[in-house]
Amino acid sequence: MDIKNILFVSPMYKDIQSILNDKRVNEEKQFRFRSEEDVVEEDYLWADGFVSFKRPDNFSFANMKWVHSFGAGVDKILQGEPWKEDVVLTRTISSFGQKISEYCLSYILGDVQKHDTYEELKNEKDWNPLVPIPLHEKQAVIYGTGVIGQEVAKTLSYFGVKVYGVSLSGNKKDHFQDVFSSESDYTHILAKTEYVINTMPLTEKTKEMFHSTLFSHMNEAMFINVGRGESVSNQDLLEALTKKNVRFAVLDVFHEEPLPKEDPFWAHPQVTVTPHISAVTTPNEGVDCFLETLDRLEKDQPLLNEVDLSKGF
Amino acid sequence: MDIKNILFVSPMYKDIQSILNDKRVNEEKQFRFRSEEDVVEEDYLWADGFVSFKRPDNFSFANMKWVHSFGAGVDKILQGEPWKEDVVLTRTISSFGQKISEYCLSYILGDVQKHDTYEELKNEKDWNPLVPIPLHEKQAVIYGTGVIGQEVAKTLSYFGVKVYGVSLSGNKKDHFQDVFSSESDYTHILAKTEYVINTMPLTEKTKEMFHSTLFSHMNEAMFINVGRGESVSNQDLLEALTKKNVRFAVLDVFHEEPLPKEDPFWAHPQVTVTPHISAVTTPNEGVDCFLETLDRLEKDQPLLNEVDLSKGF
Repeated sequence: MDIKNILFVSPMYKDIQSILNDKRVNEEKQFRFRSEEDVVEEDYLWADGFVSFKRPDNFSFANMKWVHSFGAGVDKILQGEPWKEDVVLTRTISSFGQKISEYCLSYILGDVQKHDTYEELKNEKDWNPLVPIPLHEKQAVIYGTGVIGQEVAKTLSYFGVKVYGVSLSGNKKDHFQDVFSSESDYTHILAKTEYVINTMPLTEKTKEMFHSTLFSHMNEAMFINVGRGESVSNQDLLEALTKKNVRFAVLDVFHEEPLPKEDPFWAHPQVTVTPHISAVTTPNEGVDCFLETLDRLEKDQPLLNEVDLSKGF
Repeated sequence: MDIKNILFVSPMYKDIQSILNDKRVNEEKQFRFRSEEDVVEEDYLWADGFVSFKRPDNFSFANMKWVHSFGAGVDKILQGEPWKEDVVLTRTISSFGQKISEYCLSYILGDVQKHDTYEELKNEKDWNPLVPIPLHEKQAVIYGTGVIGQEVAKTLSYFGVKVYGVSLSGNKKDHFQDVFSSESDYTHILAKTEYVINTMPLTEKTKEMFHSTLFSHMNEAMFINVGRGESVSNQDLLEALTKKNVRFAVLDVFHEEPLPKEDPFWAHPQVTVTPHISAVTTPNEGVDCFLETLDRLEKDQPLLNEVDLSKGF
């Protein structure tokens, strides 16, 4: 595929521009950098390639051949008018898997090592040797067995955690003891699982997939959501926290972001809130992935990060 | 070596007894189980093998051929009258390395993932996306390159942490970028290191090795002590915390344990105190290591956990 004019629309466009200037070898491309406020119709008419985190309100496919998402999720790029079928959509893959693994592991380790308990005991000057539980005695279920889910599984397996996967297909994948289809009955596994992690992309099939029935099969689990907020019914999660099906929730993603001040998660004692930081694309990493994808497109090599529009991820 | 009568002295002796009963195949040995309060001279005269965490006050070598420490450290077994040279001393090795790795990693990940900051921001309902730093951008120095230090190095290296070692010999070891002798000048490394971990055993050479000069070369480091409390000058550590050479200290071991109520570490805002739990021998693990060591002794196989009395570990 031949791409000449590439339009970047991002709040980070100055960083991107400067990094691209440092890294570019091929000088044949024309690049334009715009903030979302400044991008106009003429920019879209000019471009055959488009790079952004989301689809701007005034977006038009015009002459575009390729759209590249600067994030791992593409739900904010797919929203709006239906996708134009001959436009290739790719997404950033970089090291999200490792980042999300470190995010998840940090909260799991903080839990087994009883960080909160020891902080309280310290305040009371109380020497009380409660024994940390080694990870190899723990079990996790990861929803989503794609690149990110697999990397989380690999990391947890390294420490001997028994890791199961749940995916739409139920296809077996490396680093999972077993993978269940989301429509099969795996409730016997869920009931014995301490850590439940959602890495699913948001699609019609995963919307509110974490609802009261699913939560009711959990048994004092820690629920970690690094996928999308809309995959969870908030009302049902709050109820599961009260009933202790979910002992604690670590939430990095929400229906509405930033999380509104009046949201009950903020003040909930069994909830950790982080502001969608488990897999931030640094400008440097984003540019690397963009350049590699462009290179593969031009050489007609297989793309490692093309979005399957029928699946939405 | 032929061992017939083995004396166990431990506060956990009932657990040990019950696990041993489950696991024993060889019924030729005689075992006695005593608490430290109950053990008497006749027990020592009877025994040719002795298993304990520490040397009881009334201990006597009498007819003993073998002493096995139920802990990884042997300083509390070596203290008292000089060691009788023909008595073999072994120590428990089990999975201390993995446990201590998980302990250290939990605090390092909590730090890079900004757990404390996000807890504060949650209290203020403040959505402020501060980016976690991936571990592969971090550097650690581990004091002690034995079984435990190596396992910590292996775990941190898995995540791409750049790990250096410091040991008495300076001999190169797996999983370390480089190992420095404690008497060489490695201050240029220390100055750029975010995480400093002590896993050293307590010997005459490591007593208060962490003193003002060593701390002065650190630069806002997190200092994690999972070795022995006596390896650190408390006064100098407190000063280093004030000067921010040490930004934060995670202490699992102390000069006096339990840590006295009046100790300044309890109330110090830059210190985490845990009650010597980073590598607890569960009775199950202790018995496994004991049985394996006994088996090797009887078959005159090389011991994997014999203490070198000239080094003290």
